[in-house]
Amino acid sequence: MKINNIKHTKHLSPCKISDTICLPDSNVPRIVVIGGGFAGLALVEKLKHKEVQVVLFDKNNFHQFQPLLYQVATSALEPDSIVFPFRKQINGYKNVLFRLAEVEEIQPSSNTIVTNKGIVNYDYLVLATGTTTNFFGMESVEANSLGMKDIRDSLNIRHMMLQNLEQAAITCDEDERDALTNFVIVGGGPAGVEMAGALAEFCKYILPKDYPEYPSSIMNIYLIEAIDKLLSTMSDKASSKTLKYLKDLNVKILFNESVSDYDGSQVTTKSGKTILAKNLIWTAGVKGQFPKGIDEKHVVKGNRIKTDSYLKVEGYKNIFAIGDIASIITDDTPRGHPQVAQTAIQQGKYLGDKLLEIIKNKPIKPFKYKDKGSLATVGKRRAVADLGRFKFAGYFAWLLWSVVHLMSISGFRNRLMVGFNWAVSYFTYEKSNRVIIRNFKPKPPVNHTKK
Amino acid sequence: MKINNIKHTKHLSPCKISDTICLPDSNVPRIVVIGGGFAGLALVEKLKHKEVQVVLFDKNNFHQFQPLLYQVATSALEPDSIVFPFRKQINGYKNVLFRLAEVEEIQPSSNTIVTNKGIVNYDYLVLATGTTTNFFGMESVEANSLGMKDIRDSLNIRHMMLQNLEQAAITCDEDERDALTNFVIVGGGPAGVEMAGALAEFCKYILPKDYPEYPSSIMNIYLIEAIDKLLSTMSDKASSKTLKYLKDLNVKILFNESVSDYDGSQVTTKSGKTILAKNLIWTAGVKGQFPKGIDEKHVVKGNRIKTDSYLKVEGYKNIFAIGDIASIITDDTPRGHPQVAQTAIQQGKYLGDKLLEIIKNKPIKPFKYKDKGSLATVGKRRAVADLGRFKFAGYFAWLLWSVVHLMSISGFRNRLMVGFNWAVSYFTYEKSNRVIIRNFKPKPPVNHTKK
Repeated sequence: MKINNIKHTKHLSPCKISDTICLPDSNVPRIVVIGGGFAGLALVEKLKHKEVQVVLFDKNNFHQFQPLLYQVATSALEPDSIVFPFRKQINGYKNVLFRLAEVEEIQPSSNTIVTNKGIVNYDYLVLATGTTTNFFGMESVEANSLGMKDIRDSLNIRHMMLQNLEQAAITCDEDERDALTNFVIVGGGPAGVEMAGALAEFCKYILPKDYPEYPSSIMNIYLIEAIDKLLSTMSDKASSKTLKYLKDLNVKILFNESVSDYDGSQVTTKSGKTILAKNLIWTAGVKGQFPKGIDEKHVVKGNRIKTDSYLKVEGYKNIFAIGDIASIITDDTPRGHPQVAQTAIQQGKYLGDKLLEIIKNKPIKPFKYKDKGSLATVGKRRAVADLGRFKFAGYFAWLLWSVVHLMSISGFRNRLMVGFNWAVSYFTYEKSNRVIIRNFKPKPPVNHTKK
Repeated sequence: MKINNIKHTKHLSPCKISDTICLPDSNVPRIVVIGGGFAGLALVEKLKHKEVQVVLFDKNNFHQFQPLLYQVATSALEPDSIVFPFRKQINGYKNVLFRLAEVEEIQPSSNTIVTNKGIVNYDYLVLATGTTTNFFGMESVEANSLGMKDIRDSLNIRHMMLQNLEQAAITCDEDERDALTNFVIVGGGPAGVEMAGALAEFCKYILPKDYPEYPSSIMNIYLIEAIDKLLSTMSDKASSKTLKYLKDLNVKILFNESVSDYDGSQVTTKSGKTILAKNLIWTAGVKGQFPKGIDEKHVVKGNRIKTDSYLKVEGYKNIFAIGDIASIITDDTPRGHPQVAQTAIQQGKYLGDKLLEIIKNKPIKPFKYKDKGSLATVGKRRAVADLGRFKFAGYFAWLLWSVVHLMSISGFRNRLMVGFNWAVSYFTYEKSNRVIIRNFKPKPPVNHTKK
């Protein structure tokens, strides 16, 4: 029997009949944007205060600054300093709404998206859903290794690493200790190189302080690359300099080699080498990810969506794709544009500028990519830069890398935090608190019968 | 077939035959400490550089500063600024070792502890395992609400809160929206009062910025207390002032009331009131937690362990208990000492000072508790203080609270971080990034048939 029911009904604007997710009604066109990465956010920034209703959907409530994920993984930065809440970003944009939901399906025939939280109609749809780790169908590797594509991946790597180092202090089994303290990174692109460098610095500066009981040689870092050079999209100078930096930091590099199997304790390579390692970080490939509902015939290599030169998805009147997922295939770009932050930002800005003109059927210029150059860092005072004709390496490249990244992070507070952490780390070689909050499921012990 | 096996065997000091967890051999007495809270850490600090081997076991690799858990829960602080890695704490203490493991059983007859990672022998054992949330056997409450006893609880509360606020923006169901935006806190002690105040400030300053689509009245905060006053261990002045502060912040307080049932959406109280709320935070009780193996007859009220006045567990020669778990029952303290940080620190220091004398069979003085007074805060510029004869409230109490807490946090970096966040928050009312990284499992929708 209820004596007293405390209840306060709270009225928001009514829901549109056709939507099951609550959104304010509006008589301007509704643009639904799926994904708030570099591309999606650049688009939203351009559309703010314009005569459209923008609804941003993302499975996270924050934007991630992917270029620094490896620093979160190696305890150099805290996760909250490289992510930024969408609601803070769109604060004051009266025509922009954010809804936390995962889009599961697009139904182009009815201009509808289906999410895990309900259904929403759109007038225009922009896909900016990015890529995910590609394990190329190797189930054993996918099940036992970690990718590094989002903040949760980074935290998983951090916790795997710290838990395994703790376990190494506990075990009396030498093979087990070997496996727990060996690290294998697959892929010699920017993510792999930066991760290897950061791990090597951790090994050099942090390990002796935190684990005085270990000999300094306990941690081994292997970098496996399928071809014969690192950073293959950059210049030969950048590539060879990076190799030198990593060797100086004691990283063991295996060229022309790839992983064929991984049981969680032992990595097997194609040529038959085996490495005992419970830490495998996979940065060797990505593939596009997007909700079902897009006609298969518009999906091209790398699971990307083929668009025209205006970023409109082929075969649809009101669906667009931007960022890593979009592939504009022309004679100049037979494999689409490079899947990097620069492309994503430029495409987001372009579409944000042009979408209203497209809606009004005005003639527009096609998208044109402007390569601003590449930077990669291996560690403190060690970086490489290719800026057009200028190719250089060392302290100045590292300084440039630091400034460019610091200025690109969303939010003043985040910039301050990252700057502070970097400054502390520069002078003290100390990193942030190495705490295991997330539970990473430990792997089963090394199987001795196998050897 | 193996062509080339890359292997580096790493030698550490050999394991003792009787241990299955790797520990260096030593000819001084081994003191095993279980738990690195205020008590355990104070003990370790006193034992450093002494003629004993100290092995600290904890299920986490970090010490937690529990008094500020509620600030992590309400996004005022990041988790890493109130936790501190044990390995950083014991850096340079040659006779102190840390092992990350959960102790499952004590076997006093063989001087052995059994952990989830293996077995270790001790000469002396100190239990400093603290308390856990006490739901007093109410299964429905335990299953659906959140306690606030460690950093993971705080993060769970933060994520519950942010996910529910996001879901409230999505749902078109008004009861559901009610439930998602109502918060119930059970327990009017310091934890409950501080949590209620922090939530009320969140509602007042953050909600309108992050969710401009909501009316300001959308979030309701209820505080349920079993007796007729808040902060019952403090003075009447502190109690009545706290009540006023909370009322000013629009917190609805239910006195002489307790929760009888909670299904995840609706709280039912003993007197028959019902509140729709998907956010229930339980701070109404604690109970001691410790591994099995201690004779039941030495366990007293609140699941605490009865010790003599020297903190030795009754019935054992070489087992001690300190902190929340220890109960010294005398005429002065018929229910043991208060379960607060002060007691824990004083007991840890006392035992750290005396343990070597106990080992050498020297006569020692019994433990004597010195009450340094109590502080509690409801929000910015609102706090209460009982310092002996001096009882005051308001700005100065709040300033004192801030300074005392800031100076008590482990680690210079943490102090800097917390100070920085507090300063920013003081001037801007802004909090740190409200990001949902942890997945908090959402509760099922409000059951409409029930009403």
